[in-house]
Amino acid sequence: MNWKVEQLPIYELSTGDTFSIKTYTLSNGVGPHVHIQASVHGAELQGNAIILRLMEQLKAEDLQGSITFIPLANPLATNNKHGTYTFGRTNPHTGDNWNRNYTDIIEKTDFDIKEFCSKNLDKDWQQIKSAFKIELENLFKDHISQLQSSHQLSENNYLNLILQKTAAKADVILDLHTGPIATEYLYCAHYEKEIAKYLNFPYVLFMPDEFAGAMDEAAFSPWIKLKESLAELGKEIELDVYSLTCELGSEEVFSMTSQSDQLEGIINFLKFNKVLSGEIQTYPYKSCELSDYKTYQAPHGGLVDYKLSPYDTFKKGDTLCSTYKLNKLDPTNPIASTKFDLIAQEDGLIINRCPSSAVQKGMELYQVMTNISSSE
Amino acid sequence: MNWKVEQLPIYELSTGDTFSIKTYTLSNGVGPHVHIQASVHGAELQGNAIILRLMEQLKAEDLQGSITFIPLANPLATNNKHGTYTFGRTNPHTGDNWNRNYTDIIEKTDFDIKEFCSKNLDKDWQQIKSAFKIELENLFKDHISQLQSSHQLSENNYLNLILQKTAAKADVILDLHTGPIATEYLYCAHYEKEIAKYLNFPYVLFMPDEFAGAMDEAAFSPWIKLKESLAELGKEIELDVYSLTCELGSEEVFSMTSQSDQLEGIINFLKFNKVLSGEIQTYPYKSCELSDYKTYQAPHGGLVDYKLSPYDTFKKGDTLCSTYKLNKLDPTNPIASTKFDLIAQEDGLIINRCPSSAVQKGMELYQVMTNISSSE
Amino acid sequence: MNWKVEQLPIYELSTGDTFSIKTYTLSNGVGPHVHIQASVHGAELQGNAIILRLMEQLKAEDLQGSITFIPLANPLATNNKHGTYTFGRTNPHTGDNWNRNYTDIIEKTDFDIKEFCSKNLDKDWQQIKSAFKIELENLFKDHISQLQSSHQLSENNYLNLILQKTAAKADVILDLHTGPIATEYLYCAHYEKEIAKYLNFPYVLFMPDEFAGAMDEAAFSPWIKLKESLAELGKEIELDVYSLTCELGSEEVFSMTSQSDQLEGIINFLKFNKVLSGEIQTYPYKSCELSDYKTYQAPHGGLVDYKLSPYDTFKKGDTLCSTYKLNKLDPTNPIASTKFDLIAQEDGLIINRCPSSAVQKGMELYQVMTNISSSE
Amino acid sequence: MNWKVEQLPIYELSTGDTFSIKTYTLSNGVGPHVHIQASVHGAELQGNAIILRLMEQLKAEDLQGSITFIPLANPLATNNKHGTYTFGRTNPHTGDNWNRNYTDIIEKTDFDIKEFCSKNLDKDWQQIKSAFKIELENLFKDHISQLQSSHQLSENNYLNLILQKTAAKADVILDLHTGPIATEYLYCAHYEKEIAKYLNFPYVLFMPDEFAGAMDEAAFSPWIKLKESLAELGKEIELDVYSLTCELGSEEVFSMTSQSDQLEGIINFLKFNKVLSGEIQTYPYKSCELSDYKTYQAPHGGLVDYKLSPYDTFKKGDTLCSTYKLNKLDPTNPIASTKFDLIAQEDGLIINRCPSSAVQKGMELYQVMTNISSSE
Repeated sequence: MNWKVEQLPIYELSTGDTFSIKTYTLSNGVGPHVHIQASVHGAELQGNAIILRLMEQLKAEDLQGSITFIPLANPLATNNKHGTYTFGRTNPHTGDNWNRNYTDIIEKTDFDIKEFCSKNLDKDWQQIKSAFKIELENLFKDHISQLQSSHQLSENNYLNLILQKTAAKADVILDLHTGPIATEYLYCAHYEKEIAKYLNFPYVLFMPDEFAGAMDEAAFSPWIKLKESLAELGKEIELDVYSLTCELGSEEVFSMTSQSDQLEGIINFLKFNKVLSGEIQTYPYKSCELSDYKTYQAPHGGLVDYKLSPYDTFKKGDTLCSTYKLNKLDPTNPIASTKFDLIAQEDGLIINRCPSSAVQKGMELYQVMTNISSSE
Repeated sequence: MNWKVEQLPIYELSTGDTFSIKTYTLSNGVGPHVHIQASVHGAELQGNAIILRLMEQLKAEDLQGSITFIPLANPLATNNKHGTYTFGRTNPHTGDNWNRNYTDIIEKTDFDIKEFCSKNLDKDWQQIKSAFKIELENLFKDHISQLQSSHQLSENNYLNLILQKTAAKADVILDLHTGPIATEYLYCAHYEKEIAKYLNFPYVLFMPDEFAGAMDEAAFSPWIKLKESLAELGKEIELDVYSLTCELGSEEVFSMTSQSDQLEGIINFLKFNKVLSGEIQTYPYKSCELSDYKTYQAPHGGLVDYKLSPYDTFKKGDTLCSTYKLNKLDPTNPIASTKFDLIAQEDGLIINRCPSSAVQKGMELYQVMTNISSSE
Repeated sequence: MNWKVEQLPIYELSTGDTFSIKTYTLSNGVGPHVHIQASVHGAELQGNAIILRLMEQLKAEDLQGSITFIPLANPLATNNKHGTYTFGRTNPHTGDNWNRNYTDIIEKTDFDIKEFCSKNLDKDWQQIKSAFKIELENLFKDHISQLQSSHQLSENNYLNLILQKTAAKADVILDLHTGPIATEYLYCAHYEKEIAKYLNFPYVLFMPDEFAGAMDEAAFSPWIKLKESLAELGKEIELDVYSLTCELGSEEVFSMTSQSDQLEGIINFLKFNKVLSGEIQTYPYKSCELSDYKTYQAPHGGLVDYKLSPYDTFKKGDTLCSTYKLNKLDPTNPIASTKFDLIAQEDGLIINRCPSSAVQKGMELYQVMTNISSSE
Repeated sequence: MNWKVEQLPIYELSTGDTFSIKTYTLSNGVGPHVHIQASVHGAELQGNAIILRLMEQLKAEDLQGSITFIPLANPLATNNKHGTYTFGRTNPHTGDNWNRNYTDIIEKTDFDIKEFCSKNLDKDWQQIKSAFKIELENLFKDHISQLQSSHQLSENNYLNLILQKTAAKADVILDLHTGPIATEYLYCAHYEKEIAKYLNFPYVLFMPDEFAGAMDEAAFSPWIKLKESLAELGKEIELDVYSLTCELGSEEVFSMTSQSDQLEGIINFLKFNKVLSGEIQTYPYKSCELSDYKTYQAPHGGLVDYKLSPYDTFKKGDTLCSTYKLNKLDPTNPIASTKFDLIAQEDGLIINRCPSSAVQKGMELYQVMTNISSSE
């Protein structure tokens, strides 16, 4: 069991200093490859604690296959402070969200997936998988080098493409994020519905098997296309490449002792994938469709007194928060004159909450699950 | 001739204070309606000078139809300073570009344009236009109110939809912007190719007749769809609704005496559209396709010595700029050790230049026209 | 009992829009004047909740004298968001701290306090107080108008001087602030030591009777100088003008139900000052000298796992936090290779904590009381 | 002639990455020591071009003594971008101006300069100088290490103290800055009045021989105190340690071909100091006292049409700029209703101008020299 460490320079700053990402890969024998990255959004720190604890645990485990960790996957974003907070969600020069500009590599490079399928049709699924991983990695290599030589490579493109290239050989991709003030929850594509129970997240959002710019989608969408192309040629396969986004509580928080349940779940999921050995467990969760995951955008600008916190449930008609508009203040009736309640429009559960009480109209107050199902 | 002023509150801040946009409409008799807005990107100020001077000129003109001005169309963005500069390109809370999140209203609301066309097929074009404007305005009204009542209305959505609603009745839409350090140039859709010569911009970018999120596209794309739907039903019309983005030099600049040529061109274009009366002129310009409008993304992080400025032309092989990477500094050979040249990959002309010499790898250095045609 | 509302335009933005502060004054009969302001630092919101609740309570109280409230005393700062957080501590254009640039008006205007004392020496203290308040208010008026007419008035100056002018007639000045993630505590000058027990703050910092740029000092320092000047002329007075900074928990938080103890204490203090009537209580507190209030500046850059929270006490040698420097990561020993502990150098109690775990070397991690005394 | 390069890690970021400054020292034989640093304010880039060109020139020169260059003296600041601009004037976490928080080391450490003078009184000036440099360097070393061990070292302190320590052995200290949009000018203390003519800056500001937080003052003020202490003991010396701030045009600009006159002047000044050999020239300049260097703070918020640029002179009563307040817009009289002129209050010359036309009331519009003298 050997660790291989690789340093990939991503950013070059005005002073010429570089920020690199480092990949830490542990390999042993033959088995699936796992890719775990954290902090693509710079303020979302907790994934790094999970990675450190996973690495620590791997000392005692018997790995079969390989696993690559990328902690602090976006150093420019993590190091970008405005005041005491971390301005890490979007590129500070352009505003581009670090997790919305991944590349749909098959489409972008006009890769002829049908031809690939025809050519590989008689191979078994494991052989096709291996061949496709090689194709994918080459597509990324060529695309990056073509953008580079024509001076068309933006910062977001570069980071995202390097991460995609690194993840191209993986069977399991976990992108570790957090919410603002938030619960633990999982983004899980429809095709992965059966495996959500092996991870240990209390809440699961089921999303379409489609590309929309994020890492999880960017990693699974070539495989979805492959599966569909094979099906068109009459070959049905069970897709066993998984890509998920894990939301590990609140941003700006780094704790080596919290989110232990999710750590346990990730280890269990590695066992399910046979990268680690041992008993597999299943965990209950509540879920809803992404289309039932609603954002309450502030109907008022003002000072917000939040009535509910992440994990709280609410009923239609409940007050979610009260916004005090101090410019309406009548001192003879100070509270009544300034208070505007936000009423729940349907039953739900709080997933995320805005971290500030100074809120402008149109900002995100809450993100909530509605039409919730229980896994059991 | 009477001015009508309307105030539309757009933003409500944490203190409860509001920022409104104001529309100034001058009407006289029957004729086309013109919509001119400025500063949707907060640092792009020069359009306001053009509006003030146009208003001044209208004192002496004989308007036929109506014209609506919206100076300072995005007060949150113009008022948002970081240091002495204006951080006005993207929403400060989300990073969303203020000019990339307009709504494709026909698609978004599933408006049945075929049915509309069938119903109005025997009307003449002026009647169809009038009917369609009413439909459009109602689509926006309903869409805004539906988002509002379900608390789904973000700041960008709200501003953009209000501007779209206001522009829905217009035959001519001019969205006044600027570049960073920049020339004067025009974004002109393919269907508008014939009218570029009536405006007076030295450079014209021809872009597809398609929606991609910006105001100009958002304003013309329903009309493109209408035209196509009518054609499918056998009715060919000449589309005389024009929507263009006018780039008026550099950001952070407000001057009542510069860009007089473009002011003259806009007045000429109003004459062409018969909103004003008088001799119509044509002006020469250089143009290229949007696909030939190239961005040079910085291949190095460092201190950039720009060799070329907006309006400059260059040949393949010319040095566009030299980047000095001071972390490579060998004091016995200070210049040679730190200097990295950026070489032009084809002939072209500088349209935009980054306003800072402190540049990180991947930032936009130049935007250039290539494969340039002359209008004459 | 009548409320008087006054609107004072402070800021004029690039769009011409203004941000005003509003003063709400309730007067009844003869008695001391109280000045309470909140949110000079824009993210420090909780004082506004206290003001609303105080106003609500005043409906039922029998005021003797007058009280002026200024909620949201710095609208530019409260409305200034970077991402979801409020960038409200310093002027966004200049970096000047909003609570460090008040004016030492006696010194700045070379006011001859000795002459004033000589002239008023035979009056009683109440008469001298009244006369001095009038002088102070005029000094501010003249100074503002002199800066204004010579175009020397910066944004910080203007806000601060207007607040000082408004507070010039007050006998009691409370400046409501919060810490980052913080306890409730009071800044109390040495000359006010005896009255700290009438407010209800668990922690009190005793600071010198000297001007150092903050509002509390700016409000009391003319009175300190007056007292000293009178003493030099042989007249000893008991200074009964009080100016204090009240820290009401954490920034970005607005809650109508928390900090009720401090609300009770403020009401008790108004009773002590005979502005309200009723039983006076005293409250216990822990205190230290400002020179024993220590800031732990981060000795490392890294991800910080905070071991202690506000209100926690610690002993010399305790671990205050562990900083994980991921660039030191040895995957075979992930925790030991990255973990750096910060050890307490003496016994103490946590007052403030940095709100982010992404910390650069030299940033403030904790502010702590040491050499703590108990009031009882 | 040998170059010595030293790397000093200053910043440690959240990722653990460090930003260092590098000192490049060329020594030859015995002679004065020169210290030249650039970019303590991160956006002020042109000093780096001057340093590169000076280094290039040194290839051909015969140095006598030694010279230390610190290009990019504040990498955190130069790398800190908000949008395309560099937010480099103040610490992004605290707002502290990078050039206002240097330490008055003699006062801070209670160094007994009188005792030092008594002890060294019979030495000649060159010997006293050498001894004092050693004392200074040790004071900085001890002070830094004391702050470090007690965890009291902020980012600004650390950078500034390291620069001061490095400059402690210098006879000539040049701190290279720029203005916003600006001329070339020199800050020169009164005691240095005679040497301004050897540098080649068209404008010179004469400032008091006192410490006020900036590098130039921090570097000369120990020597002023030494000179005064010696004088008290009856020993008059001619102070030949020079510390000056050189302002090299506009921020965000890096050009290897501009400011050649100032480069020539710096070389001439090195000749005057006998570090280089050759003919010494003198140059004419215009100057005023720092108290006659006036800032016009914007009397209005609005869009500013600047009438004057750096280098321009004006007369009392001239219009310096016109501010257009678009919220006052009357469309029947658009220009007259919105235009507010700023009138010069006395004759003067423009040194600096705000780089944006979007200006809030109270922001700095112009900095101007008044009561100007000519050196010839």
